[in-house]
Parts: sequence; structure tokens; C-alpha cells
Amino acid sequence: MVDEEVGVAEAARRVGAGSSDGEKYVIGIDYGTLSGRALVVRVSDGAELASAVHEYPHAVIEDALPATGRKLPPEWALQVPADYIEVLKTAVPEAVRAAGIDPADVIGVGTDFTASTPLPVLEDGTPLCELDEFRENPHAYVKLWKHHAASGQSERINTLAAERGESWLPRYGGFISSEWEFAKGLQVLEEAPEVYERMDHWVEAADWIVWQLSGRYVRNACTAGYKAILQDGEYPSEEFLGALNPDFSRFAIDKVAHEIGQLGDAAGTLTAQAAEWTGLPEGIAVAVGNVDAHVTAPAAQSVDPGQMVAIMGTSTCHVMNAESRVDVQGMCGVVDGGIVKGLYGYEAGQSGVGDIFAWYVKNQVPARYAEQAAERGMSVHELLTELSQDQPVGGHGLIALDWHSGNRSVLVDHQLSGLLVGATLTTRAEEVYRALLEATAFGTRRIVEAFAEAGVPVTEFVAAGGLIRNPFLMQTYSNVLRMPISVIGSEQGPALGSAIHAAVAAGAYADVREAGQAMGRVERAKYTPDEAASDAYDELYSHYLQLHDHFGRGGHPVMRELKRIKREALA
Amino acid sequence: MVDEEVGVAEAARRVGAGSSDGEKYVIGIDYGTLSGRALVVRVSDGAELASAVHEYPHAVIEDALPATGRKLPPEWALQVPADYIEVLKTAVPEAVRAAGIDPADVIGVGTDFTASTPLPVLEDGTPLCELDEFRENPHAYVKLWKHHAASGQSERINTLAAERGESWLPRYGGFISSEWEFAKGLQVLEEAPEVYERMDHWVEAADWIVWQLSGRYVRNACTAGYKAILQDGEYPSEEFLGALNPDFSRFAIDKVAHEIGQLGDAAGTLTAQAAEWTGLPEGIAVAVGNVDAHVTAPAAQSVDPGQMVAIMGTSTCHVMNAESRVDVQGMCGVVDGGIVKGLYGYEAGQSGVGDIFAWYVKNQVPARYAEQAAERGMSVHELLTELSQDQPVGGHGLIALDWHSGNRSVLVDHQLSGLLVGATLTTRAEEVYRALLEATAFGTRRIVEAFAEAGVPVTEFVAAGGLIRNPFLMQTYSNVLRMPISVIGSEQGPALGSAIHAAVAAGAYADVREAGQAMGRVERAKYTPDEAASDAYDELYSHYLQLHDHFGRGGHPVMRELKRIKREALA
Repeated sequence: MVDEEVGVAEAARRVGAGSSDGEKYVIGIDYGTLSGRALVVRVSDGAELASAVHEYPHAVIEDALPATGRKLPPEWALQVPADYIEVLKTAVPEAVRAAGIDPADVIGVGTDFTASTPLPVLEDGTPLCELDEFRENPHAYVKLWKHHAASGQSERINTLAAERGESWLPRYGGFISSEWEFAKGLQVLEEAPEVYERMDHWVEAADWIVWQLSGRYVRNACTAGYKAILQDGEYPSEEFLGALNPDFSRFAIDKVAHEIGQLGDAAGTLTAQAAEWTGLPEGIAVAVGNVDAHVTAPAAQSVDPGQMVAIMGTSTCHVMNAESRVDVQGMCGVVDGGIVKGLYGYEAGQSGVGDIFAWYVKNQVPARYAEQAAERGMSVHELLTELSQDQPVGGHGLIALDWHSGNRSVLVDHQLSGLLVGATLTTRAEEVYRALLEATAFGTRRIVEAFAEAGVPVTEFVAAGGLIRNPFLMQTYSNVLRMPISVIGSEQGPALGSAIHAAVAAGAYADVREAGQAMGRVERAKYTPDEAASDAYDELYSHYLQLHDHFGRGGHPVMRELKRIKREALA
Repeated sequence: MVDEEVGVAEAARRVGAGSSDGEKYVIGIDYGTLSGRALVVRVSDGAELASAVHEYPHAVIEDALPATGRKLPPEWALQVPADYIEVLKTAVPEAVRAAGIDPADVIGVGTDFTASTPLPVLEDGTPLCELDEFRENPHAYVKLWKHHAASGQSERINTLAAERGESWLPRYGGFISSEWEFAKGLQVLEEAPEVYERMDHWVEAADWIVWQLSGRYVRNACTAGYKAILQDGEYPSEEFLGALNPDFSRFAIDKVAHEIGQLGDAAGTLTAQAAEWTGLPEGIAVAVGNVDAHVTAPAAQSVDPGQMVAIMGTSTCHVMNAESRVDVQGMCGVVDGGIVKGLYGYEAGQSGVGDIFAWYVKNQVPARYAEQAAERGMSVHELLTELSQDQPVGGHGLIALDWHSGNRSVLVDHQLSGLLVGATLTTRAEEVYRALLEATAFGTRRIVEAFAEAGVPVTEFVAAGGLIRNPFLMQTYSNVLRMPISVIGSEQGPALGSAIHAAVAAGAYADVREAGQAMGRVERAKYTPDEAASDAYDELYSHYLQLHDHFGRGGHPVMRELKRIKREALA
């Protein structure tokens, strides 16, 4: 097990890579918001040999289209699909090289992706943004998960679905997100009918990349269920969609519906073209696509009912299996086989977590902190954590709401925004930082409580993602949740999870659960709650809940109003 | 008229100073929180010839007594009376010298002071802190206005006064501040009975300095009314005070009550000792003491009923005359002759204004702003203003509550704290800065509306103080208030006001109003509201009001709770 980041050479030495000992390897590729990471993993025990990262050249397009400088309205977030191919061409061969293995020993490739991140393509998979005629049309590009400009459409979807009592609505906590396929697809129809007309498929990037690797378009069951409202084999009806907009009635039939692939299955095998890009053998297994969060659960050996895996990074995604299907308040969705076959996979989330800390450090922390951090060879995040962590709970007199990027669960409202109460003339930057950190812990507690209220209690909380590197944050979550926190034993949970799926697709294991037991790793109850701190947080949390309900449930819809006023002012 | 700061020589040249043209002069001395300023003013037209500032050597004592290093508890704020004498010895002769006038042409001295800033003295005016036996006793020192350690006493005063239905309570908006004489006096009795026993007078620094100049102890009607609860010639009764604490029953009679002097009257004439200190002629008029805010009204030619003068600096004080005496919600006080003889003087205030901007710049603005400001030779305040001022109203999507230092009017609650709602991951530092600026304008509007609701409407809003140097802030206030803003024509409003009072005391004018007309100056309606901006601010203000009432009137007393939790956590 590689617990900490180690040099590539060291990692290779420890696992005896490069030797002709019959070991086989798989590649897990994790497509994040800003970059793609390829990880070389040993099939027998999940040892991580080496990884390589490639940053997307176009990153996230929020201001203007790269080709023409055409300005985008607020809340847009686009990507360029060619950037994803570059990850295959650079990060994969680089990781294989660094691992020191023979590429011929690689038996499969698995991928995971942000979601819902759909793009419009032709019958052969060509993205519309790559056609000359659509290069200047923002709707021809990939709509990244955090594209929030389809909120008008999602509101209409939710209102109509509630009026009509659509049976699928409760499966999504009563709200279809503006981040998902149907809201974004309706936005394309209504704002760029020429793009809508021209596209043959509205495809998740998670499936598009598998298509590029295998030459086959297979919709993965995970995004189809969570993001495309596929429930019991049915998408929303023509009648429903036509009531939203007559021209939208055949959206599911014409643009969305396609062959479904189950998680862990092979979508196909590596094409000659993809073999050339990656340097991997043609014909090896390519796993069905998956989502970054869901793929992490087996990597943390946590796919049993009640084991909630929180992938904590810029945002946090919570996934958990259960035997039964119930309605959980504000969950993102429940999908049969959404995480592993045979169980109901639940998903919930917090739209902003690490993003909020990053925003704060970039925009609200004065020079003297940056100088001190530089002097001491630490990040500003580390310094702020250190400066604030010894203060007793409540010692800063602050409470924040962690909605700077909206609220995904349990309120499902992206028109919400951040709040800070309690600042005085002696409030210091590190105190606000800690209040923001605590706010995200409170947000997590609200989600955990929603699962308990619905009858599918969280019995173990398992943390994964970049934020596990902050022990104070982990301890705070344990204190706020009053639960032990287990921590995944990999810094690359999603990529390891993708590798696990690759191994299953290649036939090395019977199923994802078995592969996870062999290749995944977790440290159980690494953090345990401090009783006194938990008591103190209970009181703060009661105030958080009051603020949460006042601003989030209509007591004073000022956040929504401020966003409307802002839109109108800047229009 | 000297509109802008000019060199002393230039100013002297422009007014023809030093010539033997029969011109007479007065000295206005403004005692602020950190320094005293002497201003030489021509009696005939109020021209400001020169000024000089002397910083108090001991500044504000908040941590430990200077003599012995004895630590002070939180919320204490003391001063040393000898520092005030140093201003007379240094700033006055320096200003006279710089003005190039003959000291023999000076006919009077006037002063204004922070308030309530009381000290315990012997029968002859000797401060107790100057006696060897009391040098180590913090209660023997001056309690500066912002000494906030008597809040337990003020709460008892308010509770008891409300229970007993004391007639004076509504004259102070229903609340006696912990900053004022009775709360601070009760604290002395209860925490240092030996000091209480020994003091012959509990005297405002405003009156003590006049005593040092003239040799006569005269209580000025302004502080006696606003800070010592003198209403209709009566202080709070022996019975009331005895119910607070039996040993306090004769506080008003024994320690407070004294001859009252009306504003603009002479308290006496300059003593030989004070003439030696200042270099001014013995025997010239010394005006009755006054308060920095109130003295500014005639300097802005704004003492008519309905003319509200706002002295906008670290905090803002609002003073206004009216023909009638009514109860204004959350006012600091209404005093017969409190600003000028013959009218009821009202006072209201905002505890934090410039203080909030300063806190923000120090604690929440990242390095790149400081660097840019330095490159461009401007302050960070100026840069943030420039960066935010072109954004349309509401374009930042934020609303703040300006309570970082509590709320003086209209809620009178120092347990309140700051709030910011609407932050997103794209919120920039200059946007928050502007939201804070707007919050203080909303707070002002709430006060202006309280006066209208009480039947004493504000008919003209007149700005004075350091913040008048920010035209964007002034324009914002005009837009938010939907009123023109007149601006005082002096950067030294209080010192000019003191000089005006000196001229009246010296008999150069019949009364303060006449002197103000001749010597004060104001630019009427310098800023006028922009209709569209005012409309947009109306909507934001309606949300400000909802937040104001929710957090300020018990809807969710989270701010008070957070302060309690903080106190307990840090105890």
C-alpha cells in the first residue's frame, strides 16, 4: 500500500515493477474539472505504481470562447473535448513510462468523469464545436457540470414534474438539477435550436471518452440514472417533455436514449487509434464509463449498505448503497446499480467545499499571511488552519453558510449563496477560514441526518479526495458529525476506482466488490469525535440549521433575489 | 474659504495674516480619540489660517497601565489627562506660530471633546490618577467614550428604569449607553469604592479641559444632557440610583451635579497658568465645553430644524435640531439646547463606519490590491472604491449589515455583529468593500426614516468628517437616501465649530447661529440622487431592512448567542 506520495522511482522499486513476474496492470483515468490523471495500478493488489497529470489547455471556459473571444453570460462553464484526448496522448504514456512497466502487461483501461458534463455530437461522435460552422456557438461546446445557466429550465422541469406527479421526481429528492442533462439540453433547444437540430446525440463526456477509446457508444448506467432520469428503464415521457416545449418532446428518444452498459462491464476494446494515442495494446478491455464519486466507493472498500463515501475536493459528493429504495430529502438521486450492481446507489452532494476555501484564500486573505506562509514553506491553507485550529469551538463568534456555489443537498437550490454572520472589528482572516471549514462540516451533517430521517442511516462515514490531507478538517468533521471518520488509503481514489473497474472489465475479478476488496484500501475510524467539541458544535449547528432554513426554505429569499437583481443589473 | 488642504504659508498669504488690519482671531481645539488639534480661525469670516496636531503620548490605554504595566480586562479604554494639557502647550502655540498672527489678536478659545469621557477629580480638579496612591488603580484614570466594560451596569440601569417607568428613559431612545457617565460611575463604585469615595467630582473631560483653561468648573449643557441624563433640570432620582446600589443613591447630588453652562457662553477667562501654556493672552474668553459632533453643526451652517449633520469618520454621529421634543426610535438622546440654545438637539449614531472599512482593508483584502495601490500612489481604500464604483447597483449580488461594532441607532444593541450575504465563488474584494459602504448608507437611511416616523423629518442631510473625501461614498449616500447631500466646507469641522463658539463667548457675535452664518461654510446639495440608482437601492434596502429586523429584533438572536458562546469559549 502506498500511503503517502512517494517518488515514482521509489514506488516502482517497492512493487518490483518492470520485472517479468507475470504481474498485470490496469490504467485508471480520472477526468476532473481542470485536469486528467492517469494512474498505473497492479491488478493483484491495487498497488499504485505511478501517475501523471495533464492540465486541460482550455481549463474551464467561463468568460469568453477561446476561438473568437465571444463573451459568455454569467454562470456559464464550458470545456473543449479535444482537451480530454490530450490526456490520453500525454498523461497515459507518461504514467506508464514512470511506472517502468511493459505496456504489454496492461490488460484494461477504466475512466471516470465529472458529471453531468454533456456535449452535442454527430452520429460518429464528432463534437459540434469542432465543426467550423459551430465554432463560435457556445452551445456547441461541452457544458461542464458547473454550468449553471440552465436554472430557468430546471425550474420549469421541476414545477411541471411536481404538477404532473411524475413518478421519477422523488427519486431525485424532488428536484432535477440545472446541472443535469435535461435542463442543459432544453437550454440548447431554446437558445440555439440550430445546435439542437444538428446534434445526433447529447452524450455525457464520461461516455464520449469511452467511445473515443473503444469506438463504441455505450451509456453507463450511472450517469444515465443519476443525470438523465433513467428509472426502471424509462426516460421522462414524450408527453412530459412536449409539455415543457413542443419541440422537446422527442429529446429522450432522439438525442439521449442509447444502449446501457453496467458498471464494471467492458464497453468494448481499445481501438487502433486509441492504442496509438496511449501507447497501450490494441484490443485490451475498456470499461464502461463512470462518475468520479461513484467509482471511488470500491477503491475505499466501502460499497456495503450504510457506508457513505464522501469524495471531498472542490465540491463534495456523497455516495452510499442501500438494500431498499426510499426518498431521501434533497438527494441527487437513487439509481438501481448506480454504484455497484445489485444495490440501490444513493448520491448527495455539496456544490462548494474546497472551492470555497480556495476562493477565500484568493480573495479575502491579506498579504501578511501569504508572506508568512512563504517564509515557513507552507501553503496559505496550511497556515490559516494552523492559526485557527487551537481556538476553542465557538471562539471566533462566527457562523457561515457554505452556499457560495449554491446548495446541492438537501435544498437543491443553486440560487443560494454564501453567508457570514458574526464578524466584528477584531475578526481575523484565519477565523473566517475556520468558520467556512466548519460550515461545510455542518452541511455534511445536514445530509447525513437526511439519510437517517429517510430510514437509510449512515453507519460509517468514509472520506476520500484531496481534503483528507487536512487532519484538522477531518477531525472537525468527526466532531461535527459525532461519528468516526474512516479515510481511504489512496490519494487517487477515483483513478484507483477506475483501475478497479478496468480490472473487472478485463475479467481479472468476478465483480467490482471483489476487485475492491483486493485492490482498494481504507483506514477505518482514523478520526474519532471529541465529546466536548461535539457538544459545543451541537449548539453552533442548531444556529446553522436556523440560518439554513430561514435563507434556504423561503423565510427570506434574499439570496435568490440578489442573484436576480445581479443578473438584471449586469444585463 | 479654504476648500482644500493648502500649505500654511499659502493659507496665510491668502487671508493676509500677520497684517495689522484689526482682524481678530479665535482658537478652536478639537480633542479627538488619539490627538488634539488646534485651529486658528479669523473671526470676521471663519477663514482657517493654520492648524497643528498633537498626538496624545499615551494614546488609548487598552492593554495595561503605563506606570506599572498592570493588565486591563477586555473592553477597557482609558486615557491620561496630562496628555490633554500637552495639546495646549504644543499644538496651540504651534498653530498660532504657523498662522503668522500676533497672539495678542486672539480673543477667545473654544474646545470640543469626545464624549462621554469622564474622570474622577478632587475638589480643585486634580485627577485622581495623578495622586501617588491611585497611580496603579485603573479606575482613577479617564474612561474614554469607547470604554465598554460597564455594560453590566448599563443593562441594570435600563432594566430598572424601564420597570420603574422613569420619565427620562424615552428621551434616550429607551437605552442608557454603557459609554455614558452613570454606567461608568456605577462601575467605579462597585469595582473601586476607594476611588469613588475619594473623588469630589465625576467630570467630563470636555468640562475638565475648560476648567484647566479658565479655572472654573462649569458643566456644559450638551454632555450634561446627552451623557449625564439631565432632563428638565433634574438628574435621575436618589431613589432610582439607590435601587441600583444603595451606595449610589447620592451619585448625582454628590459627584455629578454642578453649575450648567449654555453652549456659546463663556465659562470664564484664560488663567495666567493657561496663558503661559498656550502663549495666548491672559483674560480672553474661554467657551463652555462641547462635544465634537454637536459643535460641528454651526460650522456647517446647519442648526435649523430638520438639518441633520452627520459627522462621518470611524463612526458616524448624527445631530439635528427640532422645535419639538418627541421620542425617536433608538436615538442617543434629545436635549433642550443640546446643540444651540432654544431648540431641542437630537443625537443618533452608527457605531462603526470608517472603522468597518479599515477592518476590512486590514483583514480581508489580498496582497495584489495593496501592490496595485502602491504602484499607483493611492490608498487601498481609493483603489477599492475605484474598482467597484462603475458596477451597476446590485451588480455584486451582496448585502451587508454594518454592525461589526454593534448598532447604536436605531437598535441600540452592541451585542449585534456584522453580516454578509450573497458571496459566491466569483465575489471580489472590491465588491464586498462596496457592499460594506452601502450597508453604512442603509444604516443611515434607517436612522433618517426613524426621525421622519417620529414627526421630526430630516429636510436636509449635511455631511462632515473624514469620509466626505470619498465622492463615491457621498454619491452612494445621496442615492440611498434619495436626498441631496450638502457637504461642510471645512476639513476641520469640529475645530472650526469650537472656534465659532469661542467667537460667541468672546462677544464677537450675538449667538452661535449668527456666528455660524458668518464663520461656517457648507456646499449645499453638492451631491444629488440619481433616480435610477435610487430605485435600484430601494429594492436592496428593502432586503437590508428585512435582515435588520430579523437579526436585530429577535427573529434569530444568533449574533447575541455567538457573542455569548465566544465569551464562554474564551473564558
